[in-house]
Amino acid sequence: MDAVREVWVLNGVNLGRLGTRQTDIYGLTSYAELAALCEAAGRARGLAVRVRQTDAEHELVGWLHEAADAAVPVVLNPAAWSHYSVAVRDACAMLTAPLVEVHLSNIHAREAFRHHSVVSAVAAGVICGLGTDGYVLALTHLANRLADA
Amino acid sequence: MDAVREVWVLNGVNLGRLGTRQTDIYGLTSYAELAALCEAAGRARGLAVRVRQTDAEHELVGWLHEAADAAVPVVLNPAAWSHYSVAVRDACAMLTAPLVEVHLSNIHAREAFRHHSVVSAVAAGVICGLGTDGYVLALTHLANRLADA
Amino acid sequence: MDAVREVWVLNGVNLGRLGTRQTDIYGLTSYAELAALCEAAGRARGLAVRVRQTDAEHELVGWLHEAADAAVPVVLNPAAWSHYSVAVRDACAMLTAPLVEVHLSNIHAREAFRHHSVVSAVAAGVICGLGTDGYVLALTHLANRLADA
Amino acid sequence: MDAVREVWVLNGVNLGRLGTRQTDIYGLTSYAELAALCEAAGRARGLAVRVRQTDAEHELVGWLHEAADAAVPVVLNPAAWSHYSVAVRDACAMLTAPLVEVHLSNIHAREAFRHHSVVSAVAAGVICGLGTDGYVLALTHLANRLADA
Amino acid sequence: MDAVREVWVLNGVNLGRLGTRQTDIYGLTSYAELAALCEAAGRARGLAVRVRQTDAEHELVGWLHEAADAAVPVVLNPAAWSHYSVAVRDACAMLTAPLVEVHLSNIHAREAFRHHSVVSAVAAGVICGLGTDGYVLALTHLANRLADA
Amino acid sequence: MDAVREVWVLNGVNLGRLGTRQTDIYGLTSYAELAALCEAAGRARGLAVRVRQTDAEHELVGWLHEAADAAVPVVLNPAAWSHYSVAVRDACAMLTAPLVEVHLSNIHAREAFRHHSVVSAVAAGVICGLGTDGYVLALTHLANRLADA
Amino acid sequence: MDAVREVWVLNGVNLGRLGTRQTDIYGLTSYAELAALCEAAGRARGLAVRVRQTDAEHELVGWLHEAADAAVPVVLNPAAWSHYSVAVRDACAMLTAPLVEVHLSNIHAREAFRHHSVVSAVAAGVICGLGTDGYVLALTHLANRLADA
Amino acid sequence: MDAVREVWVLNGVNLGRLGTRQTDIYGLTSYAELAALCEAAGRARGLAVRVRQTDAEHELVGWLHEAADAAVPVVLNPAAWSHYSVAVRDACAMLTAPLVEVHLSNIHAREAFRHHSVVSAVAAGVICGLGTDGYVLALTHLANRLADA
Amino acid sequence: MDAVREVWVLNGVNLGRLGTRQTDIYGLTSYAELAALCEAAGRARGLAVRVRQTDAEHELVGWLHEAADAAVPVVLNPAAWSHYSVAVRDACAMLTAPLVEVHLSNIHAREAFRHHSVVSAVAAGVICGLGTDGYVLALTHLANRLADA
Amino acid sequence: MDAVREVWVLNGVNLGRLGTRQTDIYGLTSYAELAALCEAAGRARGLAVRVRQTDAEHELVGWLHEAADAAVPVVLNPAAWSHYSVAVRDACAMLTAPLVEVHLSNIHAREAFRHHSVVSAVAAGVICGLGTDGYVLALTHLANRLADA
Amino acid sequence: MDAVREVWVLNGVNLGRLGTRQTDIYGLTSYAELAALCEAAGRARGLAVRVRQTDAEHELVGWLHEAADAAVPVVLNPAAWSHYSVAVRDACAMLTAPLVEVHLSNIHAREAFRHHSVVSAVAAGVICGLGTDGYVLALTHLANRLADA
Amino acid sequence: MDAVREVWVLNGVNLGRLGTRQTDIYGLTSYAELAALCEAAGRARGLAVRVRQTDAEHELVGWLHEAADAAVPVVLNPAAWSHYSVAVRDACAMLTAPLVEVHLSNIHAREAFRHHSVVSAVAAGVICGLGTDGYVLALTHLANRLADA
Repeated sequence: MDAVREVWVLNGVNLGRLGTRQTDIYGLTSYAELAALCEAAGRARGLAVRVRQTDAEHELVGWLHEAADAAVPVVLNPAAWSHYSVAVRDACAMLTAPLVEVHLSNIHAREAFRHHSVVSAVAAGVICGLGTDGYVLALTHLANRLADA
Repeated sequence: MDAVREVWVLNGVNLGRLGTRQTDIYGLTSYAELAALCEAAGRARGLAVRVRQTDAEHELVGWLHEAADAAVPVVLNPAAWSHYSVAVRDACAMLTAPLVEVHLSNIHAREAFRHHSVVSAVAAGVICGLGTDGYVLALTHLANRLADA
Repeated sequence: MDAVREVWVLNGVNLGRLGTRQTDIYGLTSYAELAALCEAAGRARGLAVRVRQTDAEHELVGWLHEAADAAVPVVLNPAAWSHYSVAVRDACAMLTAPLVEVHLSNIHAREAFRHHSVVSAVAAGVICGLGTDGYVLALTHLANRLADA
Repeated sequence: MDAVREVWVLNGVNLGRLGTRQTDIYGLTSYAELAALCEAAGRARGLAVRVRQTDAEHELVGWLHEAADAAVPVVLNPAAWSHYSVAVRDACAMLTAPLVEVHLSNIHAREAFRHHSVVSAVAAGVICGLGTDGYVLALTHLANRLADA
Repeated sequence: MDAVREVWVLNGVNLGRLGTRQTDIYGLTSYAELAALCEAAGRARGLAVRVRQTDAEHELVGWLHEAADAAVPVVLNPAAWSHYSVAVRDACAMLTAPLVEVHLSNIHAREAFRHHSVVSAVAAGVICGLGTDGYVLALTHLANRLADA
Repeated sequence: MDAVREVWVLNGVNLGRLGTRQTDIYGLTSYAELAALCEAAGRARGLAVRVRQTDAEHELVGWLHEAADAAVPVVLNPAAWSHYSVAVRDACAMLTAPLVEVHLSNIHAREAFRHHSVVSAVAAGVICGLGTDGYVLALTHLANRLADA
Repeated sequence: MDAVREVWVLNGVNLGRLGTRQTDIYGLTSYAELAALCEAAGRARGLAVRVRQTDAEHELVGWLHEAADAAVPVVLNPAAWSHYSVAVRDACAMLTAPLVEVHLSNIHAREAFRHHSVVSAVAAGVICGLGTDGYVLALTHLANRLADA
Repeated sequence: MDAVREVWVLNGVNLGRLGTRQTDIYGLTSYAELAALCEAAGRARGLAVRVRQTDAEHELVGWLHEAADAAVPVVLNPAAWSHYSVAVRDACAMLTAPLVEVHLSNIHAREAFRHHSVVSAVAAGVICGLGTDGYVLALTHLANRLADA
Repeated sequence: MDAVREVWVLNGVNLGRLGTRQTDIYGLTSYAELAALCEAAGRARGLAVRVRQTDAEHELVGWLHEAADAAVPVVLNPAAWSHYSVAVRDACAMLTAPLVEVHLSNIHAREAFRHHSVVSAVAAGVICGLGTDGYVLALTHLANRLADA
Repeated sequence: MDAVREVWVLNGVNLGRLGTRQTDIYGLTSYAELAALCEAAGRARGLAVRVRQTDAEHELVGWLHEAADAAVPVVLNPAAWSHYSVAVRDACAMLTAPLVEVHLSNIHAREAFRHHSVVSAVAAGVICGLGTDGYVLALTHLANRLADA
Repeated sequence: MDAVREVWVLNGVNLGRLGTRQTDIYGLTSYAELAALCEAAGRARGLAVRVRQTDAEHELVGWLHEAADAAVPVVLNPAAWSHYSVAVRDACAMLTAPLVEVHLSNIHAREAFRHHSVVSAVAAGVICGLGTDGYVLALTHLANRLADA
Repeated sequence: MDAVREVWVLNGVNLGRLGTRQTDIYGLTSYAELAALCEAAGRARGLAVRVRQTDAEHELVGWLHEAADAAVPVVLNPAAWSHYSVAVRDACAMLTAPLVEVHLSNIHAREAFRHHSVVSAVAAGVICGLGTDGYVLALTHLANRLADA
């Protein structure tokens, strides 16, 4: 029962730079603050949240394989990989628990090449443009689903 | 202060049919249940939520005008209009409080013409594929924003 | 048993102008004559045919909802809405009895934007270019189907 | 006067296989049954119907030339040729009596490459998705036209 | 003779909000001021100008039908409908007196989806980007045409 | 003060042939008559109008440079160059007083390649399809703007 | 030496109908007259011209194989096959003597799908729009080439 | 049991010319040698291989019909037809035993129009670019499958 | 009568460099030789041929205006302008005697952007890929037409 | 001599998950079984087969560099990278011995974005849709080539 | 030896306006200063640099012809012509010494139509976005090449 | 002050293979020689140049993060990643000192998929096609900028 309450928050390339980079687009929250926010939000919802970030596609793919094996629900911000990494998409398609895709910014209000995410079609759903709150909402949703199941 | 805590949930064409139509795509919750769910969720978050649905583009446009005048935040499910109604988009662009776009189903996992919403670029953010919970999350987000402001 | 023999003929925007507008494209029959033709054709085939026309998308959507609830077969000429109204398409997708799409003119022999109807994919079949006789043929087909069922 | 009452039903490539192939798409009626159905339908409408099928583009083209010379109305199911055979289209464009294009399945609800028929623009009209009844309706239409003329 | 000097100025969706919405794009003139401006401009040119605005597609379509029946020249700002409403286009195509399409902003200097108006091909001409003066110029043109005829 | 009242009407390639060429598209007015019409219209509005035409792209570019230096408002019919001359567009982008683009014919009702003008995005506005009256309206607009300034 | 002076004129699908079909597009000359014209033109230029026509793709392909084996120059009007028959293109690519592609009508002034010929890239050159004279010019060219060689 | 060991190798248009045509692309092996190679390879794998080639689309379609009726596995090189013949595709879709598509050359390294084969989507698999060995590999695969079944 | 026998051969940009530039594409004949060849070919056919070349678009446009006024038939090689100069196209559309477009090289066998000529749709016909002989054939055709008229 | 008989089988991202993931698409064979199958198949053909798999693009690129230096033939299944990794393509282009691209599933029968592999144009050939047997066939082919060389 | 050290810097349309036009895009350096900068840079590198600018396509084409004849290396900023002038491209393709294309601004960071230059494919290389320093770098490169040769 | 004079030269995937791979495209200089060339060029311009190469996207992303933190100007050859790695683009967009993108070959003269670099829009400028000298020029430019600042 403990096991099913674990949720992973996986962050893709460049997201470790949060708070230091283009803050007009991505906000002022640092990556460490985002991680803490997710963990706290998880705790408040009875979830053991594990937050990870990587700039390496293969590392993210590996984490998704682990999540698939452990049937852990995933909140994923694929960042730049959203727009081309079929590798990440295929790893997501192997997941056995629900996947929620999250983007900090509203990708539909930015450059045309960001309007399409190759990951979305294999996610349960997508939240974008709601900043770091998007992560909390995704966790809330997964907590609700786990409670319902 | 009461005034700023009002939030409208506006639903577009065919959504009054929820629960009776393609339930494999849209779920079993009826429209009345969805409305009650939103109102309850609002109450729990200190929001006076008003839920409306219309099959008439001009009626939705009129509600958006009212919302703009009253500076009320809006949760909008534009349904089929998402994919062509520039009229709805332009009315949304006039809003003076935040707009969250919601879709019950994951539009990126359906027919190609549903992948693009003409409304998204003028929304604060978008939530799709999370079923009726998407509405609750959107309301949660607006409650958070109102609390922060 | 009476109930299943009812069939609706629904006509979209601008079709009330038949006989007075571009008669080289749409023919000389007036809308009233078309309605009478359909009713007579229905009677001859043991069908109670109800013919309606509207210039309001929401009214057509409403009629389609009614038809879905009553499981009435529908002959639909979506007119200009064929080419963009996902609202009408989605309402058609909810129908529970067969739908035949009809166009007076041969839309494939006109401007490129008329070659595609967003409704067709959710209809049982399509008849175009055969003038008012297309309606009669559609009714004949539905009568045959009802007889077979 | 007898002469003008003759109508040809021409069937393109692979249609001789009806009833034995993908019956979920094309139905259970065999080609022989279809031919008999058309002949009977013709007889009932005072038409001498001649039904032919070929897998050879040049044979269909030849029949269309004959039909043009004899001013015979044609019901044509171009089958796979619909989607690329400009040769068939050009032969159709030479016809001197009306042409009705028929498809058993609803080509707009299938693969994208089937949505466009190069023949349609030179036909009087098109009937698709109504199964073998589409042939009978096309013959009915031609009978009506011949009666009107 | 009075009759032929009547001209209608028809305004589409969201235009009733003029002066209160995106004023950097649409200017500071309110809708009431625009209407008064058009009426005054008409009076000065010997025209009885009737200005109407609607957020309902079917209402605009109805007015265009009336204009067609009365052979009244029309100045039309289809607003957001310009970009998708084939319904409005088809109603315009029925007009029997000249139609001038007007846009307050320069649609060619805005988002790509605004560069194309489905109405333009059936108008006599188009004026865009000249603000409210565009309406006055359109009325001037119609006055000139009526004077020449 | 005299200086600001000068306006230039610049005409692009082939326009010197007006009245002798495709008169069904461009009308019967000769280029000389058009020039006279513009000068007279200018005089009536207190403007010193200078009308020029050239078949040489570099000459038009040179005139636009002069207009930029002199801050003279411009009415420009770029004719065929509208559809490809980035050189003319870039020269227009340097103008320091308002630019109105004019086309005699309704370019949106002609061949597809004429629907787009590379100049429009850098003009204040565009008038098309109103024949030679389009020039007069453009001058009227500039006169109004100069009066307002 | 006799051998190299032989030239074949090969005509594709529907061209046997010349003179009886769409004469506004293809002219009044019959196929027999065209053949005679080519033979006479050949004779006048010292060429033994053999003119053939077929409605069967495989027959044309076979003739092209023969021409390749015999190193005979070819004048080819692929007619409708121009626009899709890669089979004919590939057979043309095997030719060992020059190929001139001919079209009676100006394919660039007709429907968009006729603007591209899949054969052209493997021909020495193309003549279109010059009617039956195009054949004579093609033969003249081949005669010149043979004389030069 | 004998029956299931029969396999057909069907070759499309122009392939009878192997060894004499563009040998830089298709290699030096003649068609007769290819046929012998396939038969020998079949024999070595316990298969009765029948090799046929045709330049006529209808003949290939007929062979595919026969193969469907006899449930014979097929190795098919559709040659130029790969790129447009929906007729061949539809006949392939009727096959009841496995189909392997083969191309001598690597179609992905040639002209863009050769990158797509309309047949591939209805084949079990595709082998291209491996020359005549591709046929042997396809036969090996079918032998393996038959052995496994 | 002398007047009607005059024909102009107009050559566009860079063609003055013939024989010195990319001779693998354009051949070894110099521009002077080409001019002499045309004049001689004209003389032999009873035509007074005037050959001109320019690198200036406006000069070519001017010559076309002259040709239109004098009703002189024209052989035109628009060279690079073929692919973008709507100015040249529009000037060609004004011609009152036949226009034959000529290209030395086979533009369909070169870069994709050369496959389309904006001039072709307003020419009587096009000859390409036959080298300098293309000019002679074009003159021959015009001589034939003049003789027939 | 030993050296030239070595062949590498390189597998891209997610392929280590074979047998545990989407088995309806990729089959039931595990990655370990696939590796064993390849090694055994190699042994039977006199090849020393080395099978490797990686989820890291740079590791695959490194192996390809090694293969290039050692002139080892390669069987490559680029998996998801097929569809975007120009990095892998460019590394493949450096290979000095033959490359055969393999896909377990028939990529042409899946989502549109899988129909194109950026690697194919630089491979000798491609085998897809034949499951794990595709690897064995590729090894067979390389063995044949090595035997022939 | 002196001769080979000559280099031309050719500037296209509107570049004479440098320093006075859109200085946020093109910088504050005037054209005269740019010319002086290039000459000085050339002198410092042992090159006789000749700087010219024209707004006339034919003049630039003429200079390129001269450069081709004199085998002079060229630094070319084609400005607006980059995006459509095949005439300039074809003249560049005739050059016999190296050509370096230069743009002051980063054309890839501006409007989409500026991302492609029709000239680039026939240049040795391209420098963009480095302001006037781009010219100096281009000259440096040519000096290096001349020194190496 | 020392710090600001540091410049990094970062090289993407496969560039470590320089001099051993496709030397007709990339030249004969080895990667070690390129690094030495850059260091020497830096020294001569008062810059401490650090040259690095990686085949791992995440490593390049990491270096760009470091460069952003240290405000070091960067010369970047993204190699194959240019054409798809939004990850690299986004890391570049975070840089705080100027970025110059360099390509050894002229990417506009190669395959179509190489014509677009996703990095260019966030670089200060781009140099391509000038071989290893492009690196030296980029360093020269950065030295000039640092000197000017």
